[in-house]
Amino acid sequence: MSNIVYLNGDFINEEQASISPNDRGFLLADGVYEVAKYYNGKAFRYKDHLDRLNRSLDEIGIDYDTAELESVFMELISRNDKLEKHAGIYLQITRGTAKRSHHFPDDIKPTVYAYAFDLPSFTDKLENGIKVIVRDDIRWQRCDIKSVSLLPNTMLYNEAHKNGAGECILIRDGQVTEATHSSVLCVKNGVLVTRPLSNLILPGITRKVILELCATNNIPVEERLYTKEELYEMDEVFVAGTGSEICPVVKIEDKLVGNRKPGETTRLLQKLFFELV
Amino acid sequence: MSNIVYLNGDFINEEQASISPNDRGFLLADGVYEVAKYYNGKAFRYKDHLDRLNRSLDEIGIDYDTAELESVFMELISRNDKLEKHAGIYLQITRGTAKRSHHFPDDIKPTVYAYAFDLPSFTDKLENGIKVIVRDDIRWQRCDIKSVSLLPNTMLYNEAHKNGAGECILIRDGQVTEATHSSVLCVKNGVLVTRPLSNLILPGITRKVILELCATNNIPVEERLYTKEELYEMDEVFVAGTGSEICPVVKIEDKLVGNRKPGETTRLLQKLFFELV
Repeated sequence: MSNIVYLNGDFINEEQASISPNDRGFLLADGVYEVAKYYNGKAFRYKDHLDRLNRSLDEIGIDYDTAELESVFMELISRNDKLEKHAGIYLQITRGTAKRSHHFPDDIKPTVYAYAFDLPSFTDKLENGIKVIVRDDIRWQRCDIKSVSLLPNTMLYNEAHKNGAGECILIRDGQVTEATHSSVLCVKNGVLVTRPLSNLILPGITRKVILELCATNNIPVEERLYTKEELYEMDEVFVAGTGSEICPVVKIEDKLVGNRKPGETTRLLQKLFFELV
Repeated sequence: MSNIVYLNGDFINEEQASISPNDRGFLLADGVYEVAKYYNGKAFRYKDHLDRLNRSLDEIGIDYDTAELESVFMELISRNDKLEKHAGIYLQITRGTAKRSHHFPDDIKPTVYAYAFDLPSFTDKLENGIKVIVRDDIRWQRCDIKSVSLLPNTMLYNEAHKNGAGECILIRDGQVTEATHSSVLCVKNGVLVTRPLSNLILPGITRKVILELCATNNIPVEERLYTKEELYEMDEVFVAGTGSEICPVVKIEDKLVGNRKPGETTRLLQKLFFELV
């Protein structure tokens, strides 16, 4: 059965979905996106995703009323038979179609595209952990905006993929920022360590949930900068995101993390997280 | 009359041109582009544009044979009645359409889109110069790749546009890099000063032509880093690019450049440049 997608107000077969190559999303990466997860038809932290989306839109000056999206997403979930599965919703909003120019045209109608896809938990990875590689963070300096300007992320992740790794942890000015499509969190001496929010990382929603879980479960947290060298010396490392959930990192390049198995704080946070969702 | 564009092997009316929203150019800014200028139907420095395109494609690992493009471009020029005008060709090549993933899918067919557009010289700007603004260079660290991951450039240029300026000069680590869609060159005490090529700036073709003109006309050149403070103290400043050609900068933010009129070296280079094209 063909997938039903949403494009500019219509629910249509994926094969019929088409946009103009003059869409500014295509020509200039002038757009933003979100990925939300639906556990058995129920959105997880919808409001957080919506807030982040509205912030991204504001930051790049796209005027679009996001109120309709909640029902659009639910309709995608239901029409694609994902009510009793774990599914993701991908949403992209670009400034719209216009004659190519660097400045933002007036009176332009945003392009809105959304689709549902199966997004089961990656059980094997959650259980056994992944290997990661480490590279320089070559991305722009507004990684807090969830923009589709993702070529650097794809290049860096592709590098991980080629090396048999599941993610690529990024280093800027000697300090860990995040990974290509997930947040990075660590544990050292029982304390959860993660970089504070800034223009250099995405405000991850799973990251936020984890910090809340730490607060309610008396797991001490230090939001601080930490170096690449410190990363290698952490007791536990994991990546977190809507798709990745809470995924242990057991190997960084050729070095094993901690005792080479997912650590106990990571396990505890996984357990608490899956009780929530 | 409708514009005839080129898309994946076909010449079609612009209104009929459509791509899938699952094109990686749209979803992930996973593509590169070029803009070449045709003076009265004759390509200027075609080989340089082709070389740069091939390098961009190589750098991001898109496998596409660019040999056909020269005739495609000429056909666009001729079919759109631009043989006796000054026109631009915009070309974009993305990795192609596939289920969204950060890593590069195998066996994917690149999307190739090209169109012709009128590109007369901006006579008034060339004559009287433009104002520019100055901002931090927040772009990624592979600006040598002419990628469509252009959201930062559009945001910065839009800022210029809002401020009644014609370009935005960018500063990274205290040093001038380039502008949002042109190279920056200066003159101090009769010496042309411009930043050397690196991963932080695009190898501009007009920039290259200017350096050649300097060499053949005994204008001394220093390719070196220079600071924002030095920029304000230059005798002459101009931006250069396929669209901008050689465009004097007469005002940087609120400060007039040199004697507030386009300088004599800029004038000389304009004259030499227009003799070439």
